[in-house]
Amino acid sequence: MLNKLKYLIIGSPLPNELQGETRLNKVRALAAFSPDALSSIAYANQEIYLGLLAAGSAGLSLQFPIALAIAFLLGIVALSYAQTIRGYPSGGGSYIVARENLGTHPGLVAGAALLIDYVLTAAVSLTAGVAAITSAFPELVTYRVWLALGLLILIAVLNLRGLRESGTVMAVPVYLFLFSFFGMLLYGLVQAVIQGTPTALVTTAPPAFEPLAILLVLHAFSAGCTALTGIEAISNGTPAFKPPEWVNARKTLIVMAVLMGSLFLGSIGLTQFFGIVAGPGETILSALARRVLGNGTGYYLVQFSTLAVLAVAANTSFAGFPRVTAILAKDQFMPRQLFNVGDRLVFHNGIYILSGFTAILIVVFNGDSHALVPLFAVGAFTAFTLSQAGMVVHWFKSKEKDWQVKAFINGLGALVTAITLMVIGISKFLGGAWISIIVIPATVYLFLKIREHYKLVGKQLSMSGVPPSLRPLPKPRVVIPVSGVHRGMVDAVNLARSLTDDVTAVYIDVDPSSDEVVLRKHWNEWFPDVKFVVVPSSYRSIVEPLIKFLDQTDLEHHDGQQSVLVLPELIPASSWQEILHNQLADEIKKALLYRRRKNGFQNIIIDVPYHLKK
Amino acid sequence: MLNKLKYLIIGSPLPNELQGETRLNKVRALAAFSPDALSSIAYANQEIYLGLLAAGSAGLSLQFPIALAIAFLLGIVALSYAQTIRGYPSGGGSYIVARENLGTHPGLVAGAALLIDYVLTAAVSLTAGVAAITSAFPELVTYRVWLALGLLILIAVLNLRGLRESGTVMAVPVYLFLFSFFGMLLYGLVQAVIQGTPTALVTTAPPAFEPLAILLVLHAFSAGCTALTGIEAISNGTPAFKPPEWVNARKTLIVMAVLMGSLFLGSIGLTQFFGIVAGPGETILSALARRVLGNGTGYYLVQFSTLAVLAVAANTSFAGFPRVTAILAKDQFMPRQLFNVGDRLVFHNGIYILSGFTAILIVVFNGDSHALVPLFAVGAFTAFTLSQAGMVVHWFKSKEKDWQVKAFINGLGALVTAITLMVIGISKFLGGAWISIIVIPATVYLFLKIREHYKLVGKQLSMSGVPPSLRPLPKPRVVIPVSGVHRGMVDAVNLARSLTDDVTAVYIDVDPSSDEVVLRKHWNEWFPDVKFVVVPSSYRSIVEPLIKFLDQTDLEHHDGQQSVLVLPELIPASSWQEILHNQLADEIKKALLYRRRKNGFQNIIIDVPYHLKK
Repeated sequence: MLNKLKYLIIGSPLPNELQGETRLNKVRALAAFSPDALSSIAYANQEIYLGLLAAGSAGLSLQFPIALAIAFLLGIVALSYAQTIRGYPSGGGSYIVARENLGTHPGLVAGAALLIDYVLTAAVSLTAGVAAITSAFPELVTYRVWLALGLLILIAVLNLRGLRESGTVMAVPVYLFLFSFFGMLLYGLVQAVIQGTPTALVTTAPPAFEPLAILLVLHAFSAGCTALTGIEAISNGTPAFKPPEWVNARKTLIVMAVLMGSLFLGSIGLTQFFGIVAGPGETILSALARRVLGNGTGYYLVQFSTLAVLAVAANTSFAGFPRVTAILAKDQFMPRQLFNVGDRLVFHNGIYILSGFTAILIVVFNGDSHALVPLFAVGAFTAFTLSQAGMVVHWFKSKEKDWQVKAFINGLGALVTAITLMVIGISKFLGGAWISIIVIPATVYLFLKIREHYKLVGKQLSMSGVPPSLRPLPKPRVVIPVSGVHRGMVDAVNLARSLTDDVTAVYIDVDPSSDEVVLRKHWNEWFPDVKFVVVPSSYRSIVEPLIKFLDQTDLEHHDGQQSVLVLPELIPASSWQEILHNQLADEIKKALLYRRRKNGFQNIIIDVPYHLKK
Repeated sequence: MLNKLKYLIIGSPLPNELQGETRLNKVRALAAFSPDALSSIAYANQEIYLGLLAAGSAGLSLQFPIALAIAFLLGIVALSYAQTIRGYPSGGGSYIVARENLGTHPGLVAGAALLIDYVLTAAVSLTAGVAAITSAFPELVTYRVWLALGLLILIAVLNLRGLRESGTVMAVPVYLFLFSFFGMLLYGLVQAVIQGTPTALVTTAPPAFEPLAILLVLHAFSAGCTALTGIEAISNGTPAFKPPEWVNARKTLIVMAVLMGSLFLGSIGLTQFFGIVAGPGETILSALARRVLGNGTGYYLVQFSTLAVLAVAANTSFAGFPRVTAILAKDQFMPRQLFNVGDRLVFHNGIYILSGFTAILIVVFNGDSHALVPLFAVGAFTAFTLSQAGMVVHWFKSKEKDWQVKAFINGLGALVTAITLMVIGISKFLGGAWISIIVIPATVYLFLKIREHYKLVGKQLSMSGVPPSLRPLPKPRVVIPVSGVHRGMVDAVNLARSLTDDVTAVYIDVDPSSDEVVLRKHWNEWFPDVKFVVVPSSYRSIVEPLIKFLDQTDLEHHDGQQSVLVLPELIPASSWQEILHNQLADEIKKALLYRRRKNGFQNIIIDVPYHLKK
């Protein structure tokens, strides 16, 4: 029944033959890989605005200069990743590039940063998407946590089903977003040209309550750097492009970077030109859209397409996170279940873990993307830096044509992202960056511990040293714990007698008032050839006296004869009835399986079910 | 490790010999059985006050008349229970009396009412106790749910440890409560005599906003009837008294009833005399104590002793509920685990269930005793009525000396409680009584369903019809699902070979890219006498193809030879490591144990553990 429900939600299992990806042309690929990058403006603009608002109109006049600096950074990083696409046409995720070129530990740091980044992308995108909607419909603001969790569940279920249509269906919100935003920016530009001079900020901005210090500018800059998140997606996914893969991927990357830069600079430029200030509970992008488009259909289209593209951006985490955990699991740095492919040919365990952590972040940070952003940028820029540095080493090793130029570009990328990382780490340390700075090394430690465990297990399971002439064990003697003389006992006793002649029934007597003589007589009537032993249990435990009995009788058998437990188990007709029965068989199984006996024997258990029919 | 933690909290297991109760003298017995009854004034007064407040000063002047009517009811019910003590010296709980004299169904109704009553006593006592403290310290009011839950956990843990000292330790809060309350009442009486004439209510009471209707009076009366709850405790516990049991129990009951009545009438009388009105967030008893004693030590002593006696009252639920569920479990109306005596010689499962439901009520009703009371009285008066009616039948059957008089007294008790029950049911129906009116029959239905299940199981387990000459099964053939050639396989294969010559190893191949030829060669090197079969699984499931294989090979064996599964299971060195391994053995065990095979065979599973050392 539970299975039926499962298949209803995620669909029936798919056979192995359906595995394998379809190649994407550039238009579809842009839609598949860009949402995370493009939608970054929804929170980056907001962060720059909030960061500068504290310094009043003087602060807000720095919006565009800061945006220019970030756009410059964007250009360098995009160029740098174009090199990665060339160097790793098979897909160069940060973990792979860093591990291959810089070594295991930097690779794991990049992997940890990447995983954290995916979780934060999902959490920030969903909460920022909900913020776009609550800006339009302020009465929904009290439900923002529930709205974000609802979207999360929807995306998780779609991914558990296996989103094979990613390139097609996902294209709609992405191009809708591009269309509505560029439309708005153009219309705004026309208005700006007509207006001629910028709106003076002093008339609209609230008074400054913090002097415009260098720290404040760095704050705003580092928070705005979240605009770059998602830019690495294309280089991870190069093999999904139609051949020639790297050429198409590179072209798509450049188009994406140009779109990102135009959206970012355009929206911040107009915001500053019109001297826009957001009302309470409203995002700055919503305030811009309201100023340019008024309160009509256009405005709602922009807000809705923001939510849609952010939801699709959250979805890219669901593509990336399970893939990275699967690679890490294959390399034995994560539990091997993460490499298992589920019924729908997806890494379902990775999806569960991502959904769980994202939900926790949404709830703990109360659905507020602004509170989440400081955690965000550290992971992203750690992965950027390590990946670019890895590429430098890659070019030094390969020494292919123009390797010096390529190494220089990646080196520049590594340098600027490293500097940015330090700026973020320092300026946002107390604001939440410390969380990432603690969590990344802790995750790496966990990776290493897990691999150590798997290596130890591998050694312990090795057949080397085991004598090749394996002789079967002597016939075991059998012990049956009995609860009385009833139909559920019969199959167990018969099986025991088919295995050996040495069968002992043990009755653990927890109730001093029970009549042992009657039970023994009854037993001997039905099973005369099976010894019947009563063991009193003054502490009412079944398990302890049973183990003690096994240990004691082991001592009486010096011939190395293994004792085996035959366990009769009643299976109720339906599972709700289980709460009406003592779960004794389960309790005995668990206790014995995990405990070694004194003489070094294993506790072998033979489970003989007796199915009740009603 | 988990066991250690458990023993640290609830103490080490106790042997059977320690079972058995110590007999109580009257002074200790009063302390043991009366807290629930005595502490009822803490919420009964509050309910009458709140019920009449809506009608302003005219309403509040009815406090004392209503209290007189309830005290009259108290007298009749107490007399009636004095008869129960005589008729059931072995302890006449409502369930037993109703079941023996009125039949199974009325008995179950009484039992269900009683259980619900115990849960509500715990919830109402704890929330009313917290209200006494938040009246004294209003800043604690936001934490009232947490305070009530904290007290609940404390009491639950004490009871899981086994409160063997009940009569002694519990006596302190009870006598402290009696001392401080009677002290306050006496001091208040002196003040009243000095003042001479009552305080006019018009000067202090808020204006009426509801006309004083008959329904309002009935409301207040029925809510005030919660003053009677707990009065039946002594008659349930007659065997705990020193001999002559029934004489001592009866005397104690009369003392308790007089104390209850005096506290109730005294406190309500003074409240009305002084025209007391409670401030926001304050209980009426707290307002009375403040008026009489001022804001000094005396006031805080009264509030603290109120909390203490209410906590002890909640504790009486923890004595009663598990005892009733154990009796019901013994009679097969509840899961039999409720009859199990735990490590500390208490019915621990009953304690868990009571704690769980009480916690739910506290949380759902937001720690507000006023919201809980309407649910409360229905259960209590249902149990009263059935128990008294049962006693009438008892006397008719016994026809002992003066049986007509005894039957008349119990009949009067049954009549007045039945009328009160109807008044409560009607006047409080919408206020919450409907919940109890639904839950009681639902619980009875559950009881009957559970008994039906146990009876069916009993029939299915009967040995009648089983042929007496039980022949052992033929030697089974053994199937081993294998994951590869490793050390964890060796014991399993050896055991299988010791049981039979017909052993087959099955490799379920989920990964089309794996190299089957190498594995087969490796296998044959180590275990040449064990057949090696590869079964492809195109849906990546292990369990389904395995079951299919067993079914198919069953068909090839027409000789009724049972196939048995030998399951090699890796046991990690510590339990946290389990998340690093596929729980395949567990999955196979669960799937097979609960599924019958096509040919009617059971799925017998032999679990062979291999313990990893690190």
